[in-house]
Amino acid sequence: MNHFDLIIRGGTVATASDTFRADVGIRGGTITALGTQLGDADRIIDASGKLVLPGGIDAHCHLDQPRAKGLASGGALMADDFHSGSLSAVFGGTTTIIPFAVQHRGQSVVAAVEDYHRRANGKAYVDYGFHLIVSDPTPQVLQEELPALIADGYASVKVYMTYEAMRLSDRQILDVLDVNQRAGALTMIHAENYECIAWLTERLEAEGKTAPRFHEDSRPMVVEREATHRAITLSEVAEANLLIVHVSGKDAIEEIRRARTRGVKIFAETCPQYLFLSTRDLALPDFLGAKCMCSPPPRDPVNQAHVWQGVEDGLFDIFSSDHAPYRFDDSGKLMYGPKISFSKVANGIPGLETRAPLLFSEGVMTGRLDLNRFVALNSTNAAKLYGLHPQKGTIAVGADADIAIWDPERQVTITNAMLHHNVDYTPYEGRVLTGWPVTVLSRGQVICHEGELVGQAGHGRFLKRFRPAKGAKTWT
Amino acid sequence: MNHFDLIIRGGTVATASDTFRADVGIRGGTITALGTQLGDADRIIDASGKLVLPGGIDAHCHLDQPRAKGLASGGALMADDFHSGSLSAVFGGTTTIIPFAVQHRGQSVVAAVEDYHRRANGKAYVDYGFHLIVSDPTPQVLQEELPALIADGYASVKVYMTYEAMRLSDRQILDVLDVNQRAGALTMIHAENYECIAWLTERLEAEGKTAPRFHEDSRPMVVEREATHRAITLSEVAEANLLIVHVSGKDAIEEIRRARTRGVKIFAETCPQYLFLSTRDLALPDFLGAKCMCSPPPRDPVNQAHVWQGVEDGLFDIFSSDHAPYRFDDSGKLMYGPKISFSKVANGIPGLETRAPLLFSEGVMTGRLDLNRFVALNSTNAAKLYGLHPQKGTIAVGADADIAIWDPERQVTITNAMLHHNVDYTPYEGRVLTGWPVTVLSRGQVICHEGELVGQAGHGRFLKRFRPAKGAKTWT
Amino acid sequence: MNHFDLIIRGGTVATASDTFRADVGIRGGTITALGTQLGDADRIIDASGKLVLPGGIDAHCHLDQPRAKGLASGGALMADDFHSGSLSAVFGGTTTIIPFAVQHRGQSVVAAVEDYHRRANGKAYVDYGFHLIVSDPTPQVLQEELPALIADGYASVKVYMTYEAMRLSDRQILDVLDVNQRAGALTMIHAENYECIAWLTERLEAEGKTAPRFHEDSRPMVVEREATHRAITLSEVAEANLLIVHVSGKDAIEEIRRARTRGVKIFAETCPQYLFLSTRDLALPDFLGAKCMCSPPPRDPVNQAHVWQGVEDGLFDIFSSDHAPYRFDDSGKLMYGPKISFSKVANGIPGLETRAPLLFSEGVMTGRLDLNRFVALNSTNAAKLYGLHPQKGTIAVGADADIAIWDPERQVTITNAMLHHNVDYTPYEGRVLTGWPVTVLSRGQVICHEGELVGQAGHGRFLKRFRPAKGAKTWT
Amino acid sequence: MNHFDLIIRGGTVATASDTFRADVGIRGGTITALGTQLGDADRIIDASGKLVLPGGIDAHCHLDQPRAKGLASGGALMADDFHSGSLSAVFGGTTTIIPFAVQHRGQSVVAAVEDYHRRANGKAYVDYGFHLIVSDPTPQVLQEELPALIADGYASVKVYMTYEAMRLSDRQILDVLDVNQRAGALTMIHAENYECIAWLTERLEAEGKTAPRFHEDSRPMVVEREATHRAITLSEVAEANLLIVHVSGKDAIEEIRRARTRGVKIFAETCPQYLFLSTRDLALPDFLGAKCMCSPPPRDPVNQAHVWQGVEDGLFDIFSSDHAPYRFDDSGKLMYGPKISFSKVANGIPGLETRAPLLFSEGVMTGRLDLNRFVALNSTNAAKLYGLHPQKGTIAVGADADIAIWDPERQVTITNAMLHHNVDYTPYEGRVLTGWPVTVLSRGQVICHEGELVGQAGHGRFLKRFRPAKGAKTWT
Repeated sequence: MNHFDLIIRGGTVATASDTFRADVGIRGGTITALGTQLGDADRIIDASGKLVLPGGIDAHCHLDQPRAKGLASGGALMADDFHSGSLSAVFGGTTTIIPFAVQHRGQSVVAAVEDYHRRANGKAYVDYGFHLIVSDPTPQVLQEELPALIADGYASVKVYMTYEAMRLSDRQILDVLDVNQRAGALTMIHAENYECIAWLTERLEAEGKTAPRFHEDSRPMVVEREATHRAITLSEVAEANLLIVHVSGKDAIEEIRRARTRGVKIFAETCPQYLFLSTRDLALPDFLGAKCMCSPPPRDPVNQAHVWQGVEDGLFDIFSSDHAPYRFDDSGKLMYGPKISFSKVANGIPGLETRAPLLFSEGVMTGRLDLNRFVALNSTNAAKLYGLHPQKGTIAVGADADIAIWDPERQVTITNAMLHHNVDYTPYEGRVLTGWPVTVLSRGQVICHEGELVGQAGHGRFLKRFRPAKGAKTWT
Repeated sequence: MNHFDLIIRGGTVATASDTFRADVGIRGGTITALGTQLGDADRIIDASGKLVLPGGIDAHCHLDQPRAKGLASGGALMADDFHSGSLSAVFGGTTTIIPFAVQHRGQSVVAAVEDYHRRANGKAYVDYGFHLIVSDPTPQVLQEELPALIADGYASVKVYMTYEAMRLSDRQILDVLDVNQRAGALTMIHAENYECIAWLTERLEAEGKTAPRFHEDSRPMVVEREATHRAITLSEVAEANLLIVHVSGKDAIEEIRRARTRGVKIFAETCPQYLFLSTRDLALPDFLGAKCMCSPPPRDPVNQAHVWQGVEDGLFDIFSSDHAPYRFDDSGKLMYGPKISFSKVANGIPGLETRAPLLFSEGVMTGRLDLNRFVALNSTNAAKLYGLHPQKGTIAVGADADIAIWDPERQVTITNAMLHHNVDYTPYEGRVLTGWPVTVLSRGQVICHEGELVGQAGHGRFLKRFRPAKGAKTWT
Repeated sequence: MNHFDLIIRGGTVATASDTFRADVGIRGGTITALGTQLGDADRIIDASGKLVLPGGIDAHCHLDQPRAKGLASGGALMADDFHSGSLSAVFGGTTTIIPFAVQHRGQSVVAAVEDYHRRANGKAYVDYGFHLIVSDPTPQVLQEELPALIADGYASVKVYMTYEAMRLSDRQILDVLDVNQRAGALTMIHAENYECIAWLTERLEAEGKTAPRFHEDSRPMVVEREATHRAITLSEVAEANLLIVHVSGKDAIEEIRRARTRGVKIFAETCPQYLFLSTRDLALPDFLGAKCMCSPPPRDPVNQAHVWQGVEDGLFDIFSSDHAPYRFDDSGKLMYGPKISFSKVANGIPGLETRAPLLFSEGVMTGRLDLNRFVALNSTNAAKLYGLHPQKGTIAVGADADIAIWDPERQVTITNAMLHHNVDYTPYEGRVLTGWPVTVLSRGQVICHEGELVGQAGHGRFLKRFRPAKGAKTWT
Repeated sequence: MNHFDLIIRGGTVATASDTFRADVGIRGGTITALGTQLGDADRIIDASGKLVLPGGIDAHCHLDQPRAKGLASGGALMADDFHSGSLSAVFGGTTTIIPFAVQHRGQSVVAAVEDYHRRANGKAYVDYGFHLIVSDPTPQVLQEELPALIADGYASVKVYMTYEAMRLSDRQILDVLDVNQRAGALTMIHAENYECIAWLTERLEAEGKTAPRFHEDSRPMVVEREATHRAITLSEVAEANLLIVHVSGKDAIEEIRRARTRGVKIFAETCPQYLFLSTRDLALPDFLGAKCMCSPPPRDPVNQAHVWQGVEDGLFDIFSSDHAPYRFDDSGKLMYGPKISFSKVANGIPGLETRAPLLFSEGVMTGRLDLNRFVALNSTNAAKLYGLHPQKGTIAVGADADIAIWDPERQVTITNAMLHHNVDYTPYEGRVLTGWPVTVLSRGQVICHEGELVGQAGHGRFLKRFRPAKGAKTWT
């Protein structure tokens, strides 16, 4: 072990458990040693005074999805593809992304996956996996396609309880949960009650309440609570694990706590928008609130406080961006025209690049989170839940050298101009953050360094993901 | 880094977060490298097919405490001192112990600490710290002794809500919480309502209900629930962190969950007796149930199931033995004579050596716990909470080489004859476990290997412990 | 006031609030005086040593509903019409019944009501109202029929979340809740998740689990909990009052308690089968368990205990029979043939006559319930909730003289032979009860006396029911 | 029954269950008939357009208690004795009062009772009972005095968890609970944690925080929550019923709901100050906030809302004044001098006369409460819980003719000048209420009529009170 391709020297390394001063020795894209005074290397990166962290994993982001009517997006055009999306990820310290291969109704999931590989192929700066989205669980899908795909490395399947074009019935969700559990995939669920939202939206619009701020009134916390509780019940009936994505506030959190207390294995995700945005942002004048519209919507400060509490105390397993890149023009957010109604705005906000820095600055640097909890939320937990561990998500011997070197003192003022996505705004414009990833490596290759792009599109590879079987020993 | 004192080669290393195949390189008692094919060493231990885990930390054990009336023990003689206790710990894979320096009423805490150092000095096979027990929080103790001792490396202070000779009033607890929080110590609390227990005991004995099985009737779950809720409230009033020791069942767990949900920072400990013993053991004939008497008592299977749930889902931070070594004779358990009444039995059971193997066998090998959660419970969490991290509690560069090499397939039938404590029974006689620590190192020295003692008494050093200040960066 | 048509002399009168010794003076079918030593009367009934209680109100019973496919009943024939049903009611001390006028899909609600009047007309021994059941809430129904019917005295509307032919979508339920709330009707809901039940049933049957005892496995408590929580959420979204019918156990009760704690106005009903039957009854051999099959099913003893707790502590407002009269032959329970599968058994059990005596014997005579709580559950609360108060449901000046005179010491062994319904079994065969209604009056007319029928079919009149507007003064 | 002493004609009568139009016939101080067109009478009171309600029962008020150091009051002088206190009660529609015979430490309870009879004798305008307060439960008290007094008609005993001179230890409370339960008395408890309050008070005063508004900081909601939970636990351990007096907010309410859900029989009381006053009143300048100081203190609006919720939904059984009459001068509130510290202010506020009108106006006239719930809270429930039913607390044949005739439309602006107590202020000065009792009868005698005093001091008699034995039939 005398010679390495690369040594990161003198930094403070952190995992989800530990923080220690060590050199990191890399050979063949893999971490092969951690130690004091490791030997020689072709290249040395001086990390003294810096934090050497596992690269982030953004396990919930949308890139280059085919347009379709009836979606959250209203069929808007996604501004980011794997090229701009993965580039943006890198500059935010994220080295693995897991976007979604979406089955549309009437379509084969296999075909959707093949199409999505074509969209990804040769474009990504970092490694990527695909979650599957199932919107049409035909017998063919349930009995053949899903088991085959899961066996082939697609270890997670998302379903929706809302959006006309995507939502499944309770029974369809049971079927998908059951197939996933038996085949070894984790089910992810978007939990909002579609019919309540439709009913409320109709009423609000009938009263002329069409401004973006009514978006929250059209899908209030109780509607998310209902769907969360129902989703949990379906997982109990099917005896299958479940992950609730983008939990936005108190009542849904309470359902998750209740479930865990009775021994139900529920995982939970939240996103920056539920910590850093609120209904006040939806209320911006001139329809500008639409820039912060996503579903579930940002909530009030009491709900924000509960989400923070859950981030701190271990309630949440996953912290993702739910990056949904729509420009604030008629290609995207406003594709049905300007200022018509909140119900005609494409839902979603960009966030791949800002996700980790926001949490680091407001979590770690304020003392709310220790560094290990940050690493767990930013990276390790996603690797474990989605079948990438121990290859990804940690700094350990044998792991891929996907590393972000953070300068914890660097002050950065967020502007859309500095970001690398292809969206024309960021909801966080003007925020001043402390701490930023200054050098980012993927499999031992430096991709960006001090704001300069060094890597190449196409470096990123597709990741087959497999979850360990229940009760299996976690070592070999 | 070419040469090491010792390399543990080819094992599967686990931390609280990660599991990976690596050699462990040790120099000067410290882990200095983790890697594939580390270089030369004076000594090589082959760990192939084995698990290389951080040595256990037993953060709740009683050794060689001075006898005194009115205690849990009724002043019985402790059968284990630092010599036999630490030896027993080692053979169970535990490399750090934190017993208690007890202040008796009218005594100075400083004097108690000095006395306890005399009892420990030169006897221990592994490193040790002292928790302080305060039973008489005079102004002198609160204003001078505690702050000075905490500043000197005693980062944890235990108080009692029960036992005539030990219990503090609510106001005294507030004072201790407040002093500890400001000086940087964690407060530990034994939460049972003394007056309820006394009232119920009197009634039971008046009815002739004196057998060991009535021990549980004399301190039922509601009595522990009450004290747990009160202790939590006191920590809220004093705005101080608190750890509830030896939580025994559902209602106390529920109080802890409620507290955390409202954002109160409560830590919790449980012990093997609440997973592996039950009221059925208390009901053994011929007063033999007294062997399993401890406080709180083992509960019924429903409560057991809730404790298991808490062990699995992260409710519990600490898993300790509460080793309280009394022989089943008139020196110990029965010092007031045979078969008088449950209220005259010394409370406590031995467990230093069996603690970790029980949890490994019934937790890890059954698939209930993954290996990382086991490491966290067995070692890492205690190191973090009690101010020993990163020196102890993990396998990382810079940490002390306190390591237990486990053979996960080794079958062991527990008998008291094989144990190294000085107690004349074990409550787990005859249990067959899978997995056992076969080689144990303390600061790079092999202490025991394949059932043979290799180390020496006196190797163990006193550990000064300091908790990080609130909001402090967790790296330097 | 010197002269009365009838005086009930010397009994102990009870209302939902008070118990007092008084004569009851009746004139023109109405109670016109309560007092000591009231004057003369055409007839005197000596009630000394007896309890003079308001006649029971059975607010949930099914009589002579038209057969239809896809129902709970599988389209079985109801054995009781208004004649036999109301006769059975009388002999159990019940003087008002509120069965259901059922809209089938494609049918007008008005037509269903008209049909149901034809079925009732001239047949009943006691007064009756109709709840409406809506299974097809077309715009016509929502905008015209329901408001008109509610304004005409149909103050309650039931909807289903299960049964293929009856269930409404969440959005339809929102519409019905909204219309009812604005028009002044109370919405009642059968809360079980249809799709979960169908999914589980298919699996059970595929495994050959077709005996009646699998009925409970096919619709477990979690499935009722889910629907109960969802129903409550819908009432919150629609800002409308809601009554959950036939609550069967712990988890559903917990949802109701949680709702009330957050200020949501939820009412709740339970039935004798959840107090007096259990899964043990479903497990009777030779398919006899089918006699006790209803939905939700009887639960285990822990759930029973929670239902009792709710009966005692005020959780439940209504105690009804859910009388669903199917003979245990191929006209009814077994219309699809004998011993095919639980899923082919007509759901429902008879209970009009035994409802009040069961609760009196096991509630009042055991000391669990005081007499006033019994009166509230048996009569007063239903009168208030369903718009019959103060005409029905109490013994007060101005109220209809609907009175049951109970002998609290009378021992009765229930046999189907003694009952007056047209069903060929009772689930309570052989039970020995203490206390029975010995004389029953409807609007001052004695209908039965000491086991003899005195009244006439056709005496009973249709009752228009109107609920007080929200916030309206409750006096005039 | 042709002739009555008095008939109240044409009013709307309400009980805790029913509301009906009836004449009320009274003979010999007792209600002997309710009916339409009752016959002749010596006197007719026209109640048309009025409400004829049971006279109020104020089951928690302090009158003419002997001064003593260390009490809530700091030994201040009570401004009201049985004369002024009962007069004030009458003019607020209250016809029964239950103040407290207080045992001071070292004193016999029997002696305290005898002394209190001397203070009451010949002075009261309405009937009265005594609760006992036990502050020194010696064996003599527990074994002899309490059983004898309870057997003699003192069916309720209050204990304190706070106030230096009054508080009992947990064990003493267990003893009192046990004696009371066996002897047939209900235990009432003042639930606040004394030691927390003392600890916080010391800190606040050390920081110069002495204004009345810091009263709430010295005894925050968590401190009441703790004591409430502990009191409930003690009742579970002793298997004895318990009533929590003056519950002030959310957390204590939650403890009560939890207890009831697990089947523990806990009763609860609240007072006008927790509905109509808040921390804003404590913050009045110039130490005027001291006028609204009581313990527990008025809370913030969120807590107020929870108390209202509990009043509406049946959580609370009892609504009392906790009248504690101290003048705002150096005889009372400020006996230690003006503006020293909140901790030196006599705790308590006047409220006998305003209690029922406040609840009627803001509860009934706003539609929050129906008239029957008002009657239950104002009168019936107290009669039942404290052993006065059916003699007091309702309008029923055989009950005492204690009646308040309310004009529901009467508008009254509260001023201290109009009140009949001997306190020099009211916290409700200037409030405009709708509805007021215009004529009040005690045992058939008119005491006040349209603002004029008609009755005489000395009319009121002592009431022996007996609670029904558990499980006893509630009729005879």
